[in-house]
Amino acid sequence: MKATGVIVEYNPFHYGHIYHLEQAKKVSGADVVIAAMSGNFLQRGEPALVSKWARTEMALNGGIDLVFELPYAFAVQKADTFANGAVSLLSAAGCSSICFGSESGDIEGFYDTYRFLNQHDEKYKAAIHAFLQQGNSYPKALSLAFASLEPDKHLIDLTKPNNILGFQYVTAAQKQQASLKMATIKRKNADYHDEQFTSSPIASATSIRKALFSRTNEGSAIQSYVPDDTYRLLTSYQRSFGSFHNWENYWSYIKLLLLQTTAEELKDIYEMEEGLENRFLALAAKAESFSEFMNALKTKRYTWTRLQRALTHILTRTKKTDVKMAEEKVSYLRLLGMTRNGRAYLNRYKKEISLPIIVKRASFDDPLIRLDSKAARIYAMGLPQKYRQKALELEFSQQPLYIEKK
Amino acid sequence: MKATGVIVEYNPFHYGHIYHLEQAKKVSGADVVIAAMSGNFLQRGEPALVSKWARTEMALNGGIDLVFELPYAFAVQKADTFANGAVSLLSAAGCSSICFGSESGDIEGFYDTYRFLNQHDEKYKAAIHAFLQQGNSYPKALSLAFASLEPDKHLIDLTKPNNILGFQYVTAAQKQQASLKMATIKRKNADYHDEQFTSSPIASATSIRKALFSRTNEGSAIQSYVPDDTYRLLTSYQRSFGSFHNWENYWSYIKLLLLQTTAEELKDIYEMEEGLENRFLALAAKAESFSEFMNALKTKRYTWTRLQRALTHILTRTKKTDVKMAEEKVSYLRLLGMTRNGRAYLNRYKKEISLPIIVKRASFDDPLIRLDSKAARIYAMGLPQKYRQKALELEFSQQPLYIEKK
Repeated sequence: MKATGVIVEYNPFHYGHIYHLEQAKKVSGADVVIAAMSGNFLQRGEPALVSKWARTEMALNGGIDLVFELPYAFAVQKADTFANGAVSLLSAAGCSSICFGSESGDIEGFYDTYRFLNQHDEKYKAAIHAFLQQGNSYPKALSLAFASLEPDKHLIDLTKPNNILGFQYVTAAQKQQASLKMATIKRKNADYHDEQFTSSPIASATSIRKALFSRTNEGSAIQSYVPDDTYRLLTSYQRSFGSFHNWENYWSYIKLLLLQTTAEELKDIYEMEEGLENRFLALAAKAESFSEFMNALKTKRYTWTRLQRALTHILTRTKKTDVKMAEEKVSYLRLLGMTRNGRAYLNRYKKEISLPIIVKRASFDDPLIRLDSKAARIYAMGLPQKYRQKALELEFSQQPLYIEKK
Repeated sequence: MKATGVIVEYNPFHYGHIYHLEQAKKVSGADVVIAAMSGNFLQRGEPALVSKWARTEMALNGGIDLVFELPYAFAVQKADTFANGAVSLLSAAGCSSICFGSESGDIEGFYDTYRFLNQHDEKYKAAIHAFLQQGNSYPKALSLAFASLEPDKHLIDLTKPNNILGFQYVTAAQKQQASLKMATIKRKNADYHDEQFTSSPIASATSIRKALFSRTNEGSAIQSYVPDDTYRLLTSYQRSFGSFHNWENYWSYIKLLLLQTTAEELKDIYEMEEGLENRFLALAAKAESFSEFMNALKTKRYTWTRLQRALTHILTRTKKTDVKMAEEKVSYLRLLGMTRNGRAYLNRYKKEISLPIIVKRASFDDPLIRLDSKAARIYAMGLPQKYRQKALELEFSQQPLYIEKK
């Protein structure tokens, strides 16, 4: 059996993802699709709309055979660390390829870009440094520095979000010397950050979340933009746990934490750098909502994503010293769910998988997974009080989901 | 003009307090009554039912001429430090006497007890130590140690809560060598901790709060047990700010803080001692409400009050190092309110008052008052979101209340 890997968040799972999975199977010729999926908090520094279990169920119904959780220390991270964790996870799970979506769709372009940047390494780094000094955000400095090298037309456009991530996957695979074939699929229609629905049935996750959080419509507005299964799982989650998870639900906590913490203590938090802590403290005292706070906080120097990640780390009190472990590869594979096909794959190859496969959270311990459990406890605090305990218990007692089909 | 001092919390102001003030004026022969009043959080480690401003208004309407705020570092404290702060405040404000309510009502008994314990100091301390070692709470050990000295009958009963506090006031005045005459008034009817209303109109503050927080009655049940003015101010506060302040309102914050903090960090918090931090962490993860948490937390070794104070310090992140300043006397007098009579007193004696009198919070800085402002910000977080900013602004912009009458 041949396995291909995908790196996902499914926040929520939509038609674009179905297309990605169909293409991944076709391109890789694999029998099994394995997902490295972020848990409770995501790369853009926000709580996942619904639990890892609901999203695992969407994944299994949508075409994934095995879902492993990308630990918090890798998931809520800059693109390079995120990629490093995800690629090491899929490599450890025995994937022979990784298929990612990108605006480019041309894998040779990624490799050429990788080589090109390696050749111009010193000049590239100097240019990044210079653009950062000019007050640009890190992603902006990267893209300006890249442009300043006057790349050939056939190199990929490193201003596009999915190209950037894909480039980091390719880089991670090269650096890890993983025997992984990288493949990319050109994304259809919706841009990553699109906030509006288009006429295409492939809506971006961003536009779906935006519709879910708007006051005027209560979920039904998204019905035609997501697969029936996603719609069913979203509404069922909202019914069972009283609410989706939204940054606004955590705003009071953030505000309290910033009211009671000193700048000195805040400096220890991961991704709090360069005087950002004073800005956070001054603005939190005045802001009355998360969106008001973020709008006040935003500067040219820091991306929205970067600021949201810092807030996630404040919420979970994740310190710089806590994420040192993310400099390494993943150290276990936490199984969240499998299809019959996925189970067959595991049974056949488990002896060749060198990392422990975690089926029961309670019977395993590791600094990485402890951070995940802390994140799960805090994630549950975004629900109305009476649903929190139920949500939390799932982290410790839920067996991996199993789905018969396929 | 002659001033007498009282040490109060008025949570809320009730008929027992009116009696106390009438008696205080009679016994002291004073023209002016000055209150040292706790701010947002109280000696028993709980948020005040309503703001310091609403309670100041009750105080002024009820017979107090000048209200000064006892800073947080002294207010949320063990009886001895609390007493030390309050006595130093009233002494600095120029009081020639302090009148406190007690179960005993006999001031000579307090002085005799003070001398008696000084004479038996070594034996007393050894006995306290021994009773603490047996797992008793500190107040219990004090009272057992006292009994073990076989005191004369005319000494005061140091198992009664108001006698204990009064004894600390007398002790503080002696130690500070304050030229203050101490006087005590026998409390009428209601015991400090009474939870039930009795037939007497003098209900305890505890029973009034209990009635206010019960689900079945919405305030009107207390109408006949509190002065009209208290009733008016309580209902007006609830209308203007959406809620009274109750520990349950802060439970989610406490839970989040305990979920994200390590035992090591918790140890730095004031009044967290002797492995208490591990107990806090373990029980918080399971508890679903403040009362559930407190009931699980309670042991013979720690009084409810002591545990609540530790939780208040967790909520405000008040560290052991932050309250070092409470080893000294108060360093300023923050004026919360005055009557015409109180203003006349201030105008006449302000040159003789050596401490700065703070009228505008915003134009004064001091580590003690910074702690009060932090407490005020966090106190406001116990209100529904839309009322918080309004509540908080009062801390910084509210002028001392002024009342014409008298």
